[in-house]
Amino acid sequence: MSNSVTAKIEPAPETVTTGPFPNSRKILVNGALHPEMAVAMREIALDPSADEPPVRVYDASGPYSDPDVDIDIRQGLEPLRTPWIEARGDVKRYQGREIKPEDNGSTMRVPAPEFPNLHTPLRAKGDVAVTQLAYARRGIITPEMEYIAIRENMGRAEAVANAAETVAQGESFGAVVPQVVTAEFVRDEIARGRAIIPSNINHPEAEPMIIGRNFLVKINANIGNSAVSSSIAEEVEKMVWATRWGGDTVMDLSTGDNIHATREWIIRNSPVPIGTVPIYQALEKVNGIVEDLNWEVYRDTLIEQAEQGVDYFTVHAGLLLAHVPLTVNRTTGIVSRGGSILAKWCLAHHKENFLYTHFRDICEIMRAYDVSFSLGDGLRPGSIADANDAAQFAELETLGELRKIADEYDVQVMIEGPGHVPMHKIRENMTKQLEVCDESPFYTLGPLVTDIAPGYDHLTSGIGAAMIGWYGCAMLCYVTPKEHLGLPDREDVKVGVITYKIAAHAADLAKGHPAAQARDNALSRARFEFRWRDQFNLSLDPDTAEDFHDQTLPAEGAKVAHFCSMCGPKFCSMRISQEVQDVIAEGMNEMSEKFREEGGEIYKRIDAAE
Amino acid sequence: MSNSVTAKIEPAPETVTTGPFPNSRKILVNGALHPEMAVAMREIALDPSADEPPVRVYDASGPYSDPDVDIDIRQGLEPLRTPWIEARGDVKRYQGREIKPEDNGSTMRVPAPEFPNLHTPLRAKGDVAVTQLAYARRGIITPEMEYIAIRENMGRAEAVANAAETVAQGESFGAVVPQVVTAEFVRDEIARGRAIIPSNINHPEAEPMIIGRNFLVKINANIGNSAVSSSIAEEVEKMVWATRWGGDTVMDLSTGDNIHATREWIIRNSPVPIGTVPIYQALEKVNGIVEDLNWEVYRDTLIEQAEQGVDYFTVHAGLLLAHVPLTVNRTTGIVSRGGSILAKWCLAHHKENFLYTHFRDICEIMRAYDVSFSLGDGLRPGSIADANDAAQFAELETLGELRKIADEYDVQVMIEGPGHVPMHKIRENMTKQLEVCDESPFYTLGPLVTDIAPGYDHLTSGIGAAMIGWYGCAMLCYVTPKEHLGLPDREDVKVGVITYKIAAHAADLAKGHPAAQARDNALSRARFEFRWRDQFNLSLDPDTAEDFHDQTLPAEGAKVAHFCSMCGPKFCSMRISQEVQDVIAEGMNEMSEKFREEGGEIYKRIDAAE
Repeated sequence: MSNSVTAKIEPAPETVTTGPFPNSRKILVNGALHPEMAVAMREIALDPSADEPPVRVYDASGPYSDPDVDIDIRQGLEPLRTPWIEARGDVKRYQGREIKPEDNGSTMRVPAPEFPNLHTPLRAKGDVAVTQLAYARRGIITPEMEYIAIRENMGRAEAVANAAETVAQGESFGAVVPQVVTAEFVRDEIARGRAIIPSNINHPEAEPMIIGRNFLVKINANIGNSAVSSSIAEEVEKMVWATRWGGDTVMDLSTGDNIHATREWIIRNSPVPIGTVPIYQALEKVNGIVEDLNWEVYRDTLIEQAEQGVDYFTVHAGLLLAHVPLTVNRTTGIVSRGGSILAKWCLAHHKENFLYTHFRDICEIMRAYDVSFSLGDGLRPGSIADANDAAQFAELETLGELRKIADEYDVQVMIEGPGHVPMHKIRENMTKQLEVCDESPFYTLGPLVTDIAPGYDHLTSGIGAAMIGWYGCAMLCYVTPKEHLGLPDREDVKVGVITYKIAAHAADLAKGHPAAQARDNALSRARFEFRWRDQFNLSLDPDTAEDFHDQTLPAEGAKVAHFCSMCGPKFCSMRISQEVQDVIAEGMNEMSEKFREEGGEIYKRIDAAE
Repeated sequence: MSNSVTAKIEPAPETVTTGPFPNSRKILVNGALHPEMAVAMREIALDPSADEPPVRVYDASGPYSDPDVDIDIRQGLEPLRTPWIEARGDVKRYQGREIKPEDNGSTMRVPAPEFPNLHTPLRAKGDVAVTQLAYARRGIITPEMEYIAIRENMGRAEAVANAAETVAQGESFGAVVPQVVTAEFVRDEIARGRAIIPSNINHPEAEPMIIGRNFLVKINANIGNSAVSSSIAEEVEKMVWATRWGGDTVMDLSTGDNIHATREWIIRNSPVPIGTVPIYQALEKVNGIVEDLNWEVYRDTLIEQAEQGVDYFTVHAGLLLAHVPLTVNRTTGIVSRGGSILAKWCLAHHKENFLYTHFRDICEIMRAYDVSFSLGDGLRPGSIADANDAAQFAELETLGELRKIADEYDVQVMIEGPGHVPMHKIRENMTKQLEVCDESPFYTLGPLVTDIAPGYDHLTSGIGAAMIGWYGCAMLCYVTPKEHLGLPDREDVKVGVITYKIAAHAADLAKGHPAAQARDNALSRARFEFRWRDQFNLSLDPDTAEDFHDQTLPAEGAKVAHFCSMCGPKFCSMRISQEVQDVIAEGMNEMSEKFREEGGEIYKRIDAAE
């Protein structure tokens, strides 16, 4: 099967999807502490008849949706953070590790297009930590922190001032989402380890973002080739496409050929943090033979990827030799790729997981580049039957221990979670994570609330994702419709991202995030007033909304009609309801009195009615 | 727009989708109390290598998925309940109401194909109640009740016996789902008004099913034409299609031409209960002029539809004149079609809702045919901003009053609910309904947990549906991707149904339903053992699962391969995990000892690691 790949000569990536969203423009908001800094967000203008200000929305799409920016993916994006990083005076440029043939896969070589604009890497001078956590603890508000404060606020100050737009209620399960995010609040949350800013000093192109329970819930999109599918050009486009629809971070999970080259193209062009699972590439370097994995090849891979600019590493250091027998009676054993690789290594050598025994060594590398940990859940449940079992929770407790060690090194940490969990066990999982990991951000895959719907696992997992986001999960890793069945294509990536934007937003609403409801309200007013274009433009996916509308009523006139195809003109509840409101508005006082007088009687009349 | 419809001459329906599901067969289980009765269910056979019994699943598809049954939609389905109904001796056949021209729409007449096999209607002799509630209260276990007990159990007795297949835990929020459903349990739940069996004596073709919190969570699919779209043939196919994928009931919400004729075709061919909203047709009869609605035309419509065999009526009798002003400051006013019609009528006449003042008259009609009430929520919220507001809860309390009155007449009742509700307000809504409606079954539309994703509202609502199903909702009305934008086509209907089957099943799992997890476990074992065909066949949508798999690995050989396109052969966690399990199984005793000895040391080693 995979042999067919070797026949094709891979073309270099040339273009990606660009262009603004309908009736939207990019706006830039300058910092107060760091006035040279400009924070990008999107503003959606409404129809003049609405007499409403434009709606500001969080925007992960980077410069690709800004028509004023020239995109050249052979150059990469503008490195906006470079001046900030260099100004701190704690890093140096150096001749990085040389690229080796095995970095791009040692078995079936395909000619790979190299990224034309390679940079010289940075690392910390001496052994200081150049992490956002180290700065936060020293009381420093970095430009990254202020950027995030402005970005998270969007129009929050205005929205909060307008009481009608806020959710007064909400149940946050202990999260404390402030009315307005200040740069100091960001610093404090980072210092307490309750949030992270994944921001490798070698990925200055990324726009700063934060992952933590007291901020907007974030989502991650996975991309990456495998031994049987896909090219560099496709993967770069998937990254741009995923962030266009709202992916807050992207994980490159490539396991096929040209891993190094693919990653370089992705990082240089990515406006969001990039995560990886370094053990995948390490295994490629030892020709896929698990037993041959060792600390040296893993260490070499960490440095290779840190120099390229990977922002967070999934490290399965919490899977201990002693945990493996706990999985023997499971329905689906070990379903994490990394987990199964390390379990096999442990058993083959009858030794403790080398990621665990070398954990401090790993911390020392990561602090020199500000790579964040995403401590992997190698024993996450792969089925409803295995949810919240002894193996899963034993590993979670070890992750709590490791988080403390990373803390000694000022390395930022988030914790990965499941997986497959029925609804009634989700909160238990979230609560346990907060307890044993001292409120480190939780980052879960779904969870899927049932196993019986392959082909729809974006949906089975979207339910669990919305719930765990509400309960306190900080980032939700998307699942596409192809989960369990195949590799996602471009359309699957979009469906996965939109599904998870829905889950994350539903969670923000339910937590009582002070600004979340403003967009719902604006869209619902547009719906009630038959501003069809505003309804499309305010939605998460304007193209699909308009396309669905046009499938039954394609004429342009139907976009100003006071009805739609669902009920036709005669039955439209929205139109009738507007008439009702008009009637009431006219005669409100008179009628109210009448109702009050008659009220009691009306209730009594029922018994007499025949 | 709608004028174009008059040009086309409508063809008679000819065929619908039939055929078995892959590797599945229809099995028939006979009753004990009523041995002549045969309950149909589906059995999915597994690959011999699994060495597992076939998996029984609940099957709403009726005879259409049974290759041994000849389907002739001009004849309609076999009236399986006729002998049971006649044996009770309390009904008589009579010359029904004559069909009038206005029954099929009085404005733009399209030649409609009439159903060729019209029946003579039944009604109660004298003024006795011929409802399942009346029988249940008299201690009678009807064949319908025993049918349901067998149907709900499926393989539950066996599943419960096999402890590994059961969810020991689960949080039911007060629901009491028994280990095994007995016919007496069904009778008792009906007698207490905690469940209903929608079963008009004029719809003997339907296979009995139950809606109640202590049974499997059910789903409804809406179909129906509107003034701007669709034909009878399309609607009959949509009904068959919706039940094929799991629709437990179908509502015919037609508001266009040929309402009467369309409904006749649907009912005669429907294996599931059919619901309607009679006010829609009544309004057609008065040419769409709300002010002209009156009790006589509504009463005439109820009788017309009861004689045809509609199993439940949505009646918006709880919307009172005094409630209307409560909606004036809403973001989206009144979004229920029925609600907006009645609110307008109330205001136009300055009179109380005539469905409320004639409620006892309505009860008297419905008890003579065993039509169940679905008490409509005319004031359900249409946006996050309006959720759980004063208007909604005022109407809910009135519905609680009306339920008591229906009870006097032995008429079965369920209560309709929203709509748009953010996650943190869903449980409050469910709890309030249980309280004020004395545990009548709740039947909700979604709810949608955010307003910002038109085009994906199957998904925004699927999240809320799963949650409210968990909290105690008995039936979930589906929402399709076209919601708010247009009329669903065949593919939208399927996506809506599958989404809601997922929500309902996730709810059953979380409630701790004793047999629900058996299918998840069987599918997960198939997944772990690379039985790809079994994985497809056990899923809610085998066609899509197989299609998605084949998009990356189409070869037949890939369906027995021990990997898939996601990771390729080298990285497959499932395969590695199986090896791990084998290794452990071999050396378990020896290794366990070793782990126990070393355990303490391993945990300590971390602090010493450099």
